[in-house]
Amino acid sequence: MELLLIGIGTGNPEHLTLQAIRALNSADLVLIPSKGAEKAELAHLRRTICDEVLTNPATRVAGFEMPRRDAANPSYLDGVNDWHDAVARVWAETIAAHPGADRVALLVWGDPALYDSSLRIAARLGAPVTVIPGLMSPQVLTAAHGIPLNELGAPFLITTGRRLREEGWPEGVDTLVVMLDGDCAFATLPPEGISIWWGAYVGMEGQILDHGPLAEASPRILATRAAARATRGWIMDIYLLRRCAETEPVRA
Amino acid sequence: MELLLIGIGTGNPEHLTLQAIRALNSADLVLIPSKGAEKAELAHLRRTICDEVLTNPATRVAGFEMPRRDAANPSYLDGVNDWHDAVARVWAETIAAHPGADRVALLVWGDPALYDSSLRIAARLGAPVTVIPGLMSPQVLTAAHGIPLNELGAPFLITTGRRLREEGWPEGVDTLVVMLDGDCAFATLPPEGISIWWGAYVGMEGQILDHGPLAEASPRILATRAAARATRGWIMDIYLLRRCAETEPVRA
Ligand SMILES: C[S@@+](CC[C@H](N)C(=O)[O-])C[C@H]1O[C@@H](n2cnc3c(N)ncnc32)[C@H](O)[C@@H]1O
Ligand SMILES: C[S@@+](CC[C@H](N)C(=O)[O-])C[C@H]1O[C@@H](n2cnc3c(N)ncnc32)[C@H](O)[C@@H]1O
Repeated sequence: MELLLIGIGTGNPEHLTLQAIRALNSADLVLIPSKGAEKAELAHLRRTICDEVLTNPATRVAGFEMPRRDAANPSYLDGVNDWHDAVARVWAETIAAHPGADRVALLVWGDPALYDSSLRIAARLGAPVTVIPGLMSPQVLTAAHGIPLNELGAPFLITTGRRLREEGWPEGVDTLVVMLDGDCAFATLPPEGISIWWGAYVGMEGQILDHGPLAEASPRILATRAAARATRGWIMDIYLLRRCAETEPVRA
Repeated sequence: MELLLIGIGTGNPEHLTLQAIRALNSADLVLIPSKGAEKAELAHLRRTICDEVLTNPATRVAGFEMPRRDAANPSYLDGVNDWHDAVARVWAETIAAHPGADRVALLVWGDPALYDSSLRIAARLGAPVTVIPGLMSPQVLTAAHGIPLNELGAPFLITTGRRLREEGWPEGVDTLVVMLDGDCAFATLPPEGISIWWGAYVGMEGQILDHGPLAEASPRILATRAAARATRGWIMDIYLLRRCAETEPVRA
């Protein structure tokens, strides 16, 4: 048995690469989370992708019920590890229920290498793993804004809202990309000299963008974000922060 | 006039996304560097991509001669800025030679946001710019090795060989992705407690991978790299360094 972790991009079915489409069609079985932790809209996207690009009649598609993570576990790491064990068990059971499934594919949001559990869950199955990269949210954000990730020859850090909130602006770097931020950590920074490029639902229907000096943009983004979340029922957002931005964005 | 900067991935024509293919076919004119700074193999890839996915008979393809950068300029930044000016002039002339070219596309290696000049050159033309993201070398590297970019909830830094050589291991981060390193800066670090995942020509024909504890892998990679460069005439390589790696790679 072989596992294929296929990056699908961030919500636009056209983010798929030709390589991802080929890999999907090489699978005997595609596992799709059918309910549980996943928002209905995101689960639906995976079905749409299969409908649109799956042309191999021999490929079966199987839903599986995603276990919930025990947020009550006092140790964050133990909670995550237990959850990875539980998901691995469900994958193994679903695969076992489909005899002859030698190549098993999973559709992974964005890129499987970036803040995603699939690689760690897959390792528990002991099978060989093939990773197909997919567009990831930082680059979909910068493409939408028409800005570079790095200043000329300079480094940049990809980090989480939690780190930014707890540790402040890290030493030695002028560009941060912040992900997994449910709490708007940008609003906790002293805003002087910082610009923000923010996006919600990037690459998807209903994409929202904003940017500007942090002092001005911050209250605007807080309001936009709260309203969007209330309307749509969920939100995924990401932002780039730059100190003493070298250039203005190429386009708004 | 509108400029489309289309990310094409790192050398595998199947890295193209459906969105990139659609954007390419929406263009009136595609500009391709025909000689100059570009290696013949890389220029050839762009032609192959056009041959394989360009189906719109109205789209014209025009070669342009890439100006050389004046490496003799004592100021690095001035040299780069003059070169950007020169490339922008050649783009403008080539576009002007094709009356009616309203949508003009450029095929950008990897992702246009990552250590690439196209956005800065495009800004000089004063036209609106649309960016189509493409797979970038860091994620093609991690996919090839089957490893995550980040440790659980932890940040990572994307940086250059020059920075790593001049400044050593940066504060506060345990994972580095190093690009644009013609000089093997990894070999200048005290290797204790560091693992490396290295790749040359990632995603392309002739991809080479190696990984292991830095102390052991470093001399091996130096030798492999020198031999590959001698054989092929050029090399592009990238690596990920991790301090106290949380896990072994999922597969070799
Ligand atoms: C669990 S991580 C998964 C990241 C994913 N593997 C990737 O490559 O983008 C989820 C975080 O990614 C970011 N994200 C993913 N998709 C996004 C989208 N379409 N719009 C905005 N942010 C997104 C958000 O910061 C979100 O909190
Ligand atoms: C000028 S930068 C362009 C990066 C590109 N825009 C991207 O998204 O990957 C060139 C550097 O990218 C890395 N790179 C690009 N393609 C690569 C490949 N196929 N294999 C290894 N490294 C690559 C190397 O570190 C190289 O020095």
